[in-house]
Amino acid sequence: MLKKKSNYEVAVVGATGLVGNEMMEILEERNFPVKTFHPFASPQSAGKVVQFGGKAIKVKAIEDNSFEGIDIALFSAGSGTSLKYSPIAARAGTVVIDNSSAFRMDSNVPLVVPEVNMKAAFSNRGIIANPNCSTIQLVVALYPLHKAAKIKRIVVTTFQSVSGKGKRAMDELLAQTKALLSFQELEIKEFPHQIAFNCLPQIDDFLENDYTKEEMKMVNETRKIMGDDSIQITSTTVRVPVFRCHSESVNIETEKKLTPNEARAILSASPGVIVYDDPKRNIYPLPVDHAGKDEVYVGRIREDFSVPKGLNLWIVSDNLRKGAALNAVQIAEDLIKS
Amino acid sequence: MLKKKSNYEVAVVGATGLVGNEMMEILEERNFPVKTFHPFASPQSAGKVVQFGGKAIKVKAIEDNSFEGIDIALFSAGSGTSLKYSPIAARAGTVVIDNSSAFRMDSNVPLVVPEVNMKAAFSNRGIIANPNCSTIQLVVALYPLHKAAKIKRIVVTTFQSVSGKGKRAMDELLAQTKALLSFQELEIKEFPHQIAFNCLPQIDDFLENDYTKEEMKMVNETRKIMGDDSIQITSTTVRVPVFRCHSESVNIETEKKLTPNEARAILSASPGVIVYDDPKRNIYPLPVDHAGKDEVYVGRIREDFSVPKGLNLWIVSDNLRKGAALNAVQIAEDLIKS
Repeated sequence: MLKKKSNYEVAVVGATGLVGNEMMEILEERNFPVKTFHPFASPQSAGKVVQFGGKAIKVKAIEDNSFEGIDIALFSAGSGTSLKYSPIAARAGTVVIDNSSAFRMDSNVPLVVPEVNMKAAFSNRGIIANPNCSTIQLVVALYPLHKAAKIKRIVVTTFQSVSGKGKRAMDELLAQTKALLSFQELEIKEFPHQIAFNCLPQIDDFLENDYTKEEMKMVNETRKIMGDDSIQITSTTVRVPVFRCHSESVNIETEKKLTPNEARAILSASPGVIVYDDPKRNIYPLPVDHAGKDEVYVGRIREDFSVPKGLNLWIVSDNLRKGAALNAVQIAEDLIKS
Repeated sequence: MLKKKSNYEVAVVGATGLVGNEMMEILEERNFPVKTFHPFASPQSAGKVVQFGGKAIKVKAIEDNSFEGIDIALFSAGSGTSLKYSPIAARAGTVVIDNSSAFRMDSNVPLVVPEVNMKAAFSNRGIIANPNCSTIQLVVALYPLHKAAKIKRIVVTTFQSVSGKGKRAMDELLAQTKALLSFQELEIKEFPHQIAFNCLPQIDDFLENDYTKEEMKMVNETRKIMGDDSIQITSTTVRVPVFRCHSESVNIETEKKLTPNEARAILSASPGVIVYDDPKRNIYPLPVDHAGKDEVYVGRIREDFSVPKGLNLWIVSDNLRKGAALNAVQIAEDLIKS
């Protein structure tokens, strides 16, 4: 539990990564009350210097005693680091907000999107899990519709940007694109196949049921965050040659009929959502338009004529911000506000 | 009706376009019995020279009397040209295979995918319509499953390559990509928004119901080709920065339960389909792998756990070949065989 203070000792674990860097920017942008900023990383990245609050700060290697006196630690250094150090931090009295998948489905750990289930965060035992990027934008847009009309089933296909896989993946898209334009051999390291000018229907590893981990995250995390295991969900997750922002083609069936106009009205009044939907003027959310933005953008809202009570939607959000760093910082903000 | 001959007077209308060019290549590749080849185009493109059968042939401007003595004309010059000249050609005794959308939903015109409903082609009154690219690959893969288990509902999201919009659209993806890599201003002419490193949830114009024409083509053409108006379909069509091959994320519900293994067995034995589905080895269809191939590739076949009888599939095919030129040539082949 976090004690009320005027400012806090804040750590970012994974401070040299893409999401860690975004977390630092967002803490600064939103004037999070930071007393001292503590950047941590793996031993390989320790010693690098990051900028925070106008100061250059040396990144320290994470160790067992790193969390003494730390109030809040935002983790984004992979599941291995989270599994090892989150419990140590929690025992030291730190509130951990963990961006890895390590604890998301742990029944003792709340999985939180502030717009949906911030209440759950207050019952934390030291660790709060930040959901998967593709899930966060889905639930921010769908939860208001679920409250209004009860969603029975979701069929979602994602168009996910390479930044979801980190800095090296972004570099690989750039390098492969350059190689192809200059008729050079291309190198494939970060993805299972070429990503430039291609679409890969695989994100993360395959499970026994032939779904990928990413696909099952969307199924399981959505139910946990929305607090409703009766919602039926099926997901196909696809990597596309886009640098930033995930897009989602979403089909829902509801218990109560919702017209597109009703859905637009509900979403327009919902926190964290911007309705961007005017087909006559070719207006709908686009990944290149919403990079760096905080909100979840929803468009192409239209009736699904194939079922009595269905809607189609197109949902775009910045996977590094609302899909990762911003959501974690928002949880921290709401924790200290209460 | 086509008279049996040892070889035929064959015209391609739109011979200087991307699909027209592909039609010529496929006629040559498959040794279609061409007596004389007649390339036609709009007056602007007339005078250009195309290669066919080892000869350079001058492209003629299409005129009212162009079809005298022509047995078969493959049209791919847009709806305007088809609306004007297909009936003229049909009256001159030519069998027209029309790749535009002009006559597809005309109840007097068969809409044909040879693997599905070649029979319908034989009752033509001079014009046979070639379906939309995204529809062709969908029905080639789904019709065998429909026959086995009756498909009740289809939810499809497409990832369509820029070549579906022609040569200038391919050039635009290339030019925009180069511009972005060299920090130049980019030019947008062919698409409503930037296509490089982006995903556009709009293909063709919007209709009154807020669906695009492309989306409604998939709904209406699929029903007509499969000969079953009871199939419920909803579609979201998206342009992606891929040069060639369309990909489709397809969710189906069937009346009879089909396991993924049963679906794989059915599809493996179906004409024009290749099952490319081995998640353990990261094998699934990819647009960059199947450009220039004739078949429809299907992978990621898995049970949809959100309904009692559902499957998810990932379908990839070359939109210029099976999605356009090859399908038209196959119709012509089957017509002369009979």
